[in-house]
Amino acid sequence: MFARIDHIGVAVTDLDAALALYERDYDMTLVHRETVTEQGVEAVLLDLGENHVELLAPLSDDTPVGKFLARKGPGMHHVAYQTSDIVAELERLTIAGIQLIDTTPRIGIRGSSVAFLHPKSTGGVLTEIVQPAAGH
Amino acid sequence: MFARIDHIGVAVTDLDAALALYERDYDMTLVHRETVTEQGVEAVLLDLGENHVELLAPLSDDTPVGKFLARKGPGMHHVAYQTSDIVAELERLTIAGIQLIDTTPRIGIRGSSVAFLHPKSTGGVLTEIVQPAAGH
Repeated sequence: MFARIDHIGVAVTDLDAALALYERDYDMTLVHRETVTEQGVEAVLLDLGENHVELLAPLSDDTPVGKFLARKGPGMHHVAYQTSDIVAELERLTIAGIQLIDTTPRIGIRGSSVAFLHPKSTGGVLTEIVQPAAGH
Repeated sequence: MFARIDHIGVAVTDLDAALALYERDYDMTLVHRETVTEQGVEAVLLDLGENHVELLAPLSDDTPVGKFLARKGPGMHHVAYQTSDIVAELERLTIAGIQLIDTTPRIGIRGSSVAFLHPKSTGGVLTEIVQPAAGH
């Protein structure tokens, strides 16, 4: 069972230009910035109550987010639902017939455990399941 | 200042098929169903902690959500940020140079006050500001 929306992921071409909007105009607090080489992104987390906004800038054009930007332009990329037990959740979703992109969790931003569900199974919504690292 | 993500809005072609995913597979609780004629949608709210998922099915092809589905297919449609004072928030965003679709709030789902920001000003993200009705 999901506890809340953990974050929405937003694909951006220019991280600093996007931060002007989210930090200055929206008054959200930047809490983390990380280059996630294996996902090909530079990513930022902003706090918004118990939720976050994650901004994703591609490290190159041939990364998943780079290809997303080329195909669709900047905008919403995915939604992430939070759980306290990602392994149990993935097992439950598999039994429900949901197609998983990641059948086992991998390490996401800020030490979280993450897995993506396939948009074919989720009404076109790229959906991530997140178990935050202890303390987050 | 925004308090949290109020909801993500998801465009769907078939509300009941989508509910099978969100209610049965995701275990979210349906809390409200409403036909919002002026927006041309049948909409559903599901609870997810203090956040919601809003499913939007168009009443006809020539509505905004109908056109969105024809252009992009089903998927994430918008994000909504929650505030306790939408009038002050719109004033603040206008001063910040954000282009508004609704310069004054209008009535949204479940009696909320809502206004949309223009995606041109928000990095391609259709963004809604929501002040929930008292008691929600």
